Amino acid sequence: SKYEYVKKFETDDRLPPSSWIVVRIDGCHFHQFSAEHAFEKPNDENALNLMNSCAASMLEQFPDIVFAYGVSDEYSFIWKETTQFYQRRASKLLSLSVSYFTSVYVMKWKEFFPHKELKGPPYFDGRVVCYPRAKIVQDYLAWRQVDCHINNQYNTCFWMLVKSGKTQREAQELLKGTQAKDKNELLFQQFNVNYDKLPQMFRKGSCVYRKKVEEVVKLVDTGNPVTRTRSKVVVEHKDIIGPKFWSELPYILKEE
Amino acid sequence: SKYEYVKKFETDDRLPPSSWIVVRIDGCHFHQFSAEHAFEKPNDENALNLMNSCAASMLEQFPDIVFAYGVSDEYSFIWKETTQFYQRRASKLLSLSVSYFTSVYVMKWKEFFPHKELKGPPYFDGRVVCYPRAKIVQDYLAWRQVDCHINNQYNTCFWMLVKSGKTQREAQELLKGTQAKDKNELLFQQFNVNYDKLPQMFRKGSCVYRKKVEEVVKLVDTGNPVTRTRSKVVVEHKDIIGPKFWSELPYILKEE
Amino acid sequence: SKYEYVKKFETDDRLPPSSWIVVRIDGCHFHQFSAEHAFEKPNDENALNLMNSCAASMLEQFPDIVFAYGVSDEYSFIWKETTQFYQRRASKLLSLSVSYFTSVYVMKWKEFFPHKELKGPPYFDGRVVCYPRAKIVQDYLAWRQVDCHINNQYNTCFWMLVKSGKTQREAQELLKGTQAKDKNELLFQQFNVNYDKLPQMFRKGSCVYRKKVEEVVKLVDTGNPVTRTRSKVVVEHKDIIGPKFWSELPYILKEE
Amino acid sequence: SKYEYVKKFETDDRLPPSSWIVVRIDGCHFHQFSAEHAFEKPNDENALNLMNSCAASMLEQFPDIVFAYGVSDEYSFIWKETTQFYQRRASKLLSLSVSYFTSVYVMKWKEFFPHKELKGPPYFDGRVVCYPRAKIVQDYLAWRQVDCHINNQYNTCFWMLVKSGKTQREAQELLKGTQAKDKNELLFQQFNVNYDKLPQMFRKGSCVYRKKVEEVVKLVDTGNPVTRTRSKVVVEHKDIIGPKFWSELPYILKEE
Ligand SMILES: Nc1nc2c(ncn2[C@H]2C[C@H](O)[C@@H](COP(=O)(O)OP(=O)(O)OP(=O)(O)O)O2)c(=O)[nH]1
Ligand SMILES: Nc1nc2c(ncn2[C@H]2C[C@H](O)[C@@H](COP(=O)(O)OP(=O)(O)OP(=O)(O)O)O2)c(=O)[nH]1
Ligand SMILES: Nc1nc2c(ncn2[C@H]2C[C@H](O)[C@@H](COP(=O)(O)OP(=O)(O)OP(=O)(O)O)O2)c(=O)[nH]1
Ligand SMILES: Nc1nc2c(ncn2[C@H]2C[C@H](O)[C@@H](COP(=O)(O)OP(=O)(O)OP(=O)(O)O)O2)c(=O)[nH]1
Ligand SMILES: O=P(O)(O)OP(=O)(O)OP(=O)(O)O
Ligand SMILES: O=P(O)(O)OP(=O)(O)OP(=O)(O)O
Ligand SMILES: O=P(O)(O)OP(=O)(O)OP(=O)(O)O
Ligand SMILES: O=P(O)(O)OP(=O)(O)OP(=O)(O)O
Ligand SMILES: [Mg+2]
Ligand SMILES: [Mg+2]
Ligand SMILES: [Mg+2]
Ligand SMILES: [Mg+2]
Ligand SMILES: [Mg+2]
Ligand SMILES: [Mg+2]
Ligand SMILES: [Mg+2]
Ligand SMILES: [Mg+2]
Ligand SMILES: [Mg+2]
Ligand SMILES: [Mg+2]
Ligand SMILES: [Mg+2]
Ligand SMILES: [Mg+2]
Repeated sequence: SKYEYVKKFETDDRLPPSSWIVVRIDGCHFHQFSAEHAFEKPNDENALNLMNSCAASMLEQFPDIVFAYGVSDEYSFIWKETTQFYQRRASKLLSLSVSYFTSVYVMKWKEFFPHKELKGPPYFDGRVVCYPRAKIVQDYLAWRQVDCHINNQYNTCFWMLVKSGKTQREAQELLKGTQAKDKNELLFQQFNVNYDKLPQMFRKGSCVYRKKVEEVVKLVDTGNPVTRTRSKVVVEHKDIIGPKFWSELPYILKEE
Repeated sequence: SKYEYVKKFETDDRLPPSSWIVVRIDGCHFHQFSAEHAFEKPNDENALNLMNSCAASMLEQFPDIVFAYGVSDEYSFIWKETTQFYQRRASKLLSLSVSYFTSVYVMKWKEFFPHKELKGPPYFDGRVVCYPRAKIVQDYLAWRQVDCHINNQYNTCFWMLVKSGKTQREAQELLKGTQAKDKNELLFQQFNVNYDKLPQMFRKGSCVYRKKVEEVVKLVDTGNPVTRTRSKVVVEHKDIIGPKFWSELPYILKEE
Repeated sequence: SKYEYVKKFETDDRLPPSSWIVVRIDGCHFHQFSAEHAFEKPNDENALNLMNSCAASMLEQFPDIVFAYGVSDEYSFIWKETTQFYQRRASKLLSLSVSYFTSVYVMKWKEFFPHKELKGPPYFDGRVVCYPRAKIVQDYLAWRQVDCHINNQYNTCFWMLVKSGKTQREAQELLKGTQAKDKNELLFQQFNVNYDKLPQMFRKGSCVYRKKVEEVVKLVDTGNPVTRTRSKVVVEHKDIIGPKFWSELPYILKEE
Repeated sequence: SKYEYVKKFETDDRLPPSSWIVVRIDGCHFHQFSAEHAFEKPNDENALNLMNSCAASMLEQFPDIVFAYGVSDEYSFIWKETTQFYQRRASKLLSLSVSYFTSVYVMKWKEFFPHKELKGPPYFDGRVVCYPRAKIVQDYLAWRQVDCHINNQYNTCFWMLVKSGKTQREAQELLKGTQAKDKNELLFQQFNVNYDKLPQMFRKGSCVYRKKVEEVVKLVDTGNPVTRTRSKVVVEHKDIIGPKFWSELPYILKEE
């Protein structure tokens, strides 16, 4: 039709070749959403497990996502450097990622919160960032995990203090200027809590990736198992700041 | 932390001032999704009403969306020229729109399909396009409505033929090269269907916008009503190709 | 060759349709360049005439430039809304404009400065900006002309004071906080200068555009002239802030 | 002023961190320019030396250019990965590069063509491309040098044939479908020319970079020289396709 010229205003938003693509999504107004749905403070295990389950679905759905890292209301998805998914068009990658995640989040809600109805639609913002080298992607992930650590330590102290009777303002004042060590000390002295013993998921966030597993397919007559290697999506709570994780699983961020 | 440098790779994606922003979303793989969920062919009233209900929620949620137009598995949202929503950052506008729509779609599914379970997560792609003038936005919308008309006329014929016993290939062959007039003729001659009498929603798609309505607030002692003007989101199926609609509602695409 | 893949890293930088394209260039380090070449202060007539001559060459060379405005070491070139020059590729428009201008500047130097050798290569930065409506292009040009006025008034006072014996610091101090009126007063009281009588080129900058002129082609036997209309590039120093200029020459920024 | 809002239409065009920036410029309409100025065919030594001299000036002027490669009417400038020149703004890098080059080209013209006047302004287009890894920059440069080789071999044959009396069409026909080997054969058989003995500059193009040189500063009393290491811009015509060049000068494309 004579109106088709409007299509010309669309821009070519293909991302450059040979760069790792990170899609980070983050719950919109989850301060309010978590309050409305009475999430436990500072960490709600069900809410986090729901996030992780959605992330695992992402890896099942999009084979070119090689790694995902989640903490709080956010998740980062690393698309492999060479992905040709929708020709690397940024808006396709962004919209499909955030839409699929949101859809699964709502669909699985009942599974993780069988006794809570959704009071309003949960939704997420998203962005796309390109990183030219695997090493910088590692730094990106370290950035998120350091953030997880700092926030979680702070929040753990904060809510301990509040639950013990302090006002939120008092708790804030008490924590102002404290270092990591001070906070650990405070937890231990005042609440007899060893921070390092708190659940890994709270302290380290969640890593989702494919692991090669040996699987028994059947037993032959002699009783011996026949096995094959399969790729399985796993959720773990490991340190990804140091080099160990990456050197043990070099295939995850392998550069062409 | 020393990793914060990775934030520098994010790009400034604010859209230019003084331009209308269109976010168009489109169901991903809805060929398959509509089949899996046995949508009626060619138009499933419930599916379309669900889409429209989600679009109405969008206008309730995002005040800067001034108009939306939907057809089939797609919806276009027009953000007003001067919106400062998230500083006009393209990825915020895109991700929040598509995520909110998806979330509402899943949440409302049961309301429109009480007897069908979701078999998999519905999700949508999305894109952002800028238009410099209101006139071009009208052309954009005309483009979508012309598309609606052409596809719907074709699909109506196609599925009539198929339901009457033709194979899909035969139907396709019969329609090859036919004009609008031929298709209307075919419907009338063979199926006694007057195309113009089919539901407006199928033929025109759906328009969602705010209408000023007079509302009775209370009755005073004398029995006279006290009224006030309120803005109400409505869903209609009108012609938006001609100038009439726009000249009657000049406030919708008013340019600064 | 197997190396051709590197071409894929080039990005599509075509500017959106239906927008006016402004290329603004500005002398790089002209503070130094004007000092090295002993430009008169605050305005060197030869230097400005050279700039204007280059701008006129630009309009001769690039038919889609409809208007140019220059002041000091800068020039803005307005490309018509519908130009298809190099498919509107931003880097082509930018690089060819700035390169052509620079080339002509060096070639014509001798013509305007017959007694001065170039001591180093003059060069210019450049940028491309899109404006969606003619009205905003007018505002853009008004912005530059207001800037011209403010700077020129300041510089005129400043150099008068300095030439009269003040140090640069003293001149600066004297002018701090003064309004337009104060400056005019100062010029008149102290230096008997009526600012409004200074050359238009200094006060208004320079406008370059095509004017339709009647031209005598030949005289026929009767002695009567045969004329035709020709488009001629002119340089003028008019007010382009008010509406008068634009309403008298509506074809310059005519919108499709 | 109230017009300053127009500044908001400028976009942030800073290039991503940690990527090599290539600015490639290319003579605009040099087919015509070389004809007008009677450049020797296929290679005009003076024209090429002028280009090289301009490129050397570029490296003197812009310390963050680490390497340049030129052939025919084009030159590529490699900016170091970490350059912060004008905050990596693409339009600054592009416009300043192309403008400076152009300026020097015109200024030095007389030096290389003492007996030819410029008949019109030479000018160049330009583009900016980002490459994420040094290895890909090497491939980029190899791409240009392979192009140089192929074009030069073809052009050498073509002009030999034409100079020997063939029409341009005949020469073209004769060369259609020939391989590198065939062309070398043709040159040797028909013109007794050993292609490998032609000037390196024609066959390999030109590399410009900084070389560390030992320099005698003065002689001490004993007659022994005092030396220091200095960085000197050199122009050479070497193979940059193989690994040798890069492994001998690892500092040129050193990655952080
Ligand atoms: N109680 C509780 N709250 C959580 C949990 N996970 C996340 N949240 C809340 C705490 C924060 O208020 C919020 C995440 O911080 P954000 O910076 O993303 O803020 P928010 O989502 O409100 O704003 P945004 O729309 O992202 O700018 O979500 C949880 O497990 N338990
Ligand atoms: N039966 C039925 N199908 C519908 C209805 N609305 C949309 N669809 C289906 C028909 C088309 O196959 C599909 C929409 O066409 P698209 O071009 O968007 O294709 P699809 O979503 O499969 O692919 P995409 O991921 O968008 O590229 O959705 C409906 O009301 N009834
Ligand atoms: N004496 C004299 N100087 C002039 C004339 N026109 C321009 N200039 C000088 C005055 C300013 O120092 C300079 C223009 O200001 P800019 O803001 O463009 O500064 P400049 O070019 O030094 O730096 P830039 O590289 O553009 O950031 O050029 C003139 O007619 N006479
Ligand atoms: N005779 C002669 N011509 C040369 C020499 N170096 C370059 N040229 C000419 C040959 C080609 O026609 C032209 C370079 O090819 P291009 O593809 O850059 O074409 P041209 O500059 O005409 O068009 P463009 O504006 O770049 O698209 O310059 C030379 O040393 N001698
Ligand atoms: O953690 P981020 O990147 O989401 O940081 P923010 O402060 O929420 O900023 P943004 O507006 O980019 O979401
Ligand atoms: O109707 P569109 O714009 O979605 O057209 P398409 O053929 O689906 O193309 P795209 O890959 O841009 O979604
Ligand atoms: O007048 P401008 O836009 O050149 O302003 P500037 O302060 O010189 O800034 P820029 O770095 O954009 O040239
Ligand atoms: O060699 P290039 O990249 O200049 O190739 P081109 O065919 O001249 O194309 P362009 O229009 O990008 O200059
Ligand atoms: Mg955020
Ligand atoms: Mg959030
Ligand atoms: Mg968050
Ligand atoms: Mg599509
Ligand atoms: Mg679809
Ligand atoms: Mg569709
Ligand atoms: Mg500037
Ligand atoms: Mg300047
Ligand atoms: Mg200036
Ligand atoms: Mg080219
Ligand atoms: Mg060329
Ligand atoms: Mg060339």
